[in-house]
Amino acid sequence: MTTNLAITRPTLIIDEKKCRTKIAAMQKKAVYNGIVFRPHFKTHQSAAIGEWFRQAGVSSIAVSSVGMACYFAQHRWHDIMIAIPINILEIDAINSLAKNINLSIVLESAELAMRLQKKLKESVSVFIEIDIGDNRTGISHTNIKEIQHLVAVVQQHQHTMFKGFLAHAGHTYSARGVQQIKAIHEASEQKLKIIQTCFPNAYLSIGDTPSCSIVNTFSVINEIRPGNFIFYDLMQQQIGACNFSDISCAIACPIIAKYPQRNEIVIYGGGVHLSKDSIVHHQFGEIFGLACTKNFTPLENTYVKKLSQEHGVVHLPTAFFNQYHIGDLLYILPIHSCMAADLMSYYLTSSGKKVEKYNY
Amino acid sequence: MTTNLAITRPTLIIDEKKCRTKIAAMQKKAVYNGIVFRPHFKTHQSAAIGEWFRQAGVSSIAVSSVGMACYFAQHRWHDIMIAIPINILEIDAINSLAKNINLSIVLESAELAMRLQKKLKESVSVFIEIDIGDNRTGISHTNIKEIQHLVAVVQQHQHTMFKGFLAHAGHTYSARGVQQIKAIHEASEQKLKIIQTCFPNAYLSIGDTPSCSIVNTFSVINEIRPGNFIFYDLMQQQIGACNFSDISCAIACPIIAKYPQRNEIVIYGGGVHLSKDSIVHHQFGEIFGLACTKNFTPLENTYVKKLSQEHGVVHLPTAFFNQYHIGDLLYILPIHSCMAADLMSYYLTSSGKKVEKYNY
Repeated sequence: MTTNLAITRPTLIIDEKKCRTKIAAMQKKAVYNGIVFRPHFKTHQSAAIGEWFRQAGVSSIAVSSVGMACYFAQHRWHDIMIAIPINILEIDAINSLAKNINLSIVLESAELAMRLQKKLKESVSVFIEIDIGDNRTGISHTNIKEIQHLVAVVQQHQHTMFKGFLAHAGHTYSARGVQQIKAIHEASEQKLKIIQTCFPNAYLSIGDTPSCSIVNTFSVINEIRPGNFIFYDLMQQQIGACNFSDISCAIACPIIAKYPQRNEIVIYGGGVHLSKDSIVHHQFGEIFGLACTKNFTPLENTYVKKLSQEHGVVHLPTAFFNQYHIGDLLYILPIHSCMAADLMSYYLTSSGKKVEKYNY
Repeated sequence: MTTNLAITRPTLIIDEKKCRTKIAAMQKKAVYNGIVFRPHFKTHQSAAIGEWFRQAGVSSIAVSSVGMACYFAQHRWHDIMIAIPINILEIDAINSLAKNINLSIVLESAELAMRLQKKLKESVSVFIEIDIGDNRTGISHTNIKEIQHLVAVVQQHQHTMFKGFLAHAGHTYSARGVQQIKAIHEASEQKLKIIQTCFPNAYLSIGDTPSCSIVNTFSVINEIRPGNFIFYDLMQQQIGACNFSDISCAIACPIIAKYPQRNEIVIYGGGVHLSKDSIVHHQFGEIFGLACTKNFTPLENTYVKKLSQEHGVVHLPTAFFNQYHIGDLLYILPIHSCMAADLMSYYLTSSGKKVEKYNY
């Protein structure tokens, strides 16, 4: 890390203290429940931020690509899960990783398991993905027969060591409010409990940030894998997983134009910086971010109305509009921090320290 | 360029021949009209692809950031326009560029012009941006008084050499069909004609891909700056700027899971590869891409239904569903090729040559 780099183009700014507080709280929650905290590093993709987790006692992590696993393996992480059904085309890198670290992979079909077994040269831990309602990947939680078959296939080969089950309750993203998140999580635990009855020694890993943020007591599961909570964002705030004050990143964007007749400021900061993710705001319709202060406090009634590749159009009430000038920085709370962070080649902390990250 | 790199993760594949044909046709159209073809390089951001343009006779280019201008300046481009209101915070890089190349910049407020003049150490060509209906940036075409004032401010300083006016008819993106695109373009030319009456020696530059693709005869303008046409995409096809057969890129994505019960394939290829840009399809609602063959021919009724950070869920009719297997590549036509290309660290041509690009 170097210090006090000038901000001249769209840059993700991180409140290090707030991030560290959230890491410590999540770790404390895991310890209290006697479970493992395996943070998902796809959100920040940064070795430097990884160290904040390590200092809080974390030693197991999850990532979402083989490339990211290689990056973190190079940065002294020895227990890495690639939390997406394995991409067989990357078998060479997978074998190389498996040789050097304790690698966990995800499988959800017998066909893929058998193809993988033919090519694996090293041992890996295997998690079987269970679909508990998100309808993205995984074997349906109701299909015990298929689960049993895949467990048997995995167990029959020396290099695929069956560890347990992985689930991602991505449907909490359509929840609104603490009660709905809790209800989805309780249903998830119920579904996994039934599977645990069939496989009493299986390890259970769950992952979504809304559940891990809101739920304090976990019953059947052994591991949590939240990622987004390190930054949070407007999507999580809308879901009810966090408050505005929990958001610990914003994108500082240079102001390049002002239009008093329509109360709009144009920032150098577009879809290639903020991502095109949007939410439907109860008052402003589809928005691509909210403007905020340097301390990440939202400026009332001030939102990103549209995005081009490099431009962002921000609507501001007159009082705020008059406070900002061309050449100033306008801070934007992202809709989806994982996506915005992915678009950056580095971050800065609020105190100006450069934070290096993975770039494939 | 190296040859025949294996595709193991989401990769933008380019049909070089088709791209070169489109470049030659656009250059021919410009020559026929006696105007300058200044392609916008923000779409491909690649020095290697830049050479395809150079070989077709192009010597002037547009880019959308100071960083991109520096990259292409390093690759022997000597006439570069940064086609977005200038970001004063990058003045050091701007001065450095202006020293080494023929740099054109965009201004649209007297306030910014005067601040820039205080800091400029070298001469730059200045285009004043005119808003002809897009309502993003630029002085309204009806505000002749403000335009005159800015021209006067620009002309009073030795380092800001007034060159002419720049417009971007971004509202063609809401057009549907050739007639609507033509109508918007004719209105644009009318608006610029009035401005030309007041400033007879001013050079006029316009830029959107729909107009430049559809219109064959240009009357008042001196320069066209299309960018997206090199690749095209589903958004341009929906607008009516191109046919499916004109699209010359697709993202090859490894298949990681199959679900016969819901006719869905999950690809390793998510929002960080395709971007979260979407269109509303007349039949399938909001979609994030269409699946296609290796030759970029769409597979009927096969579309990208949703995207996570790294996963894409693709719906396929049974006939196609049965043809694809885990570990195969599924090609996806992007909604917005500029955004997808920006997310890549390199491309491959259909014949397997690696195409290097700018990465900030």
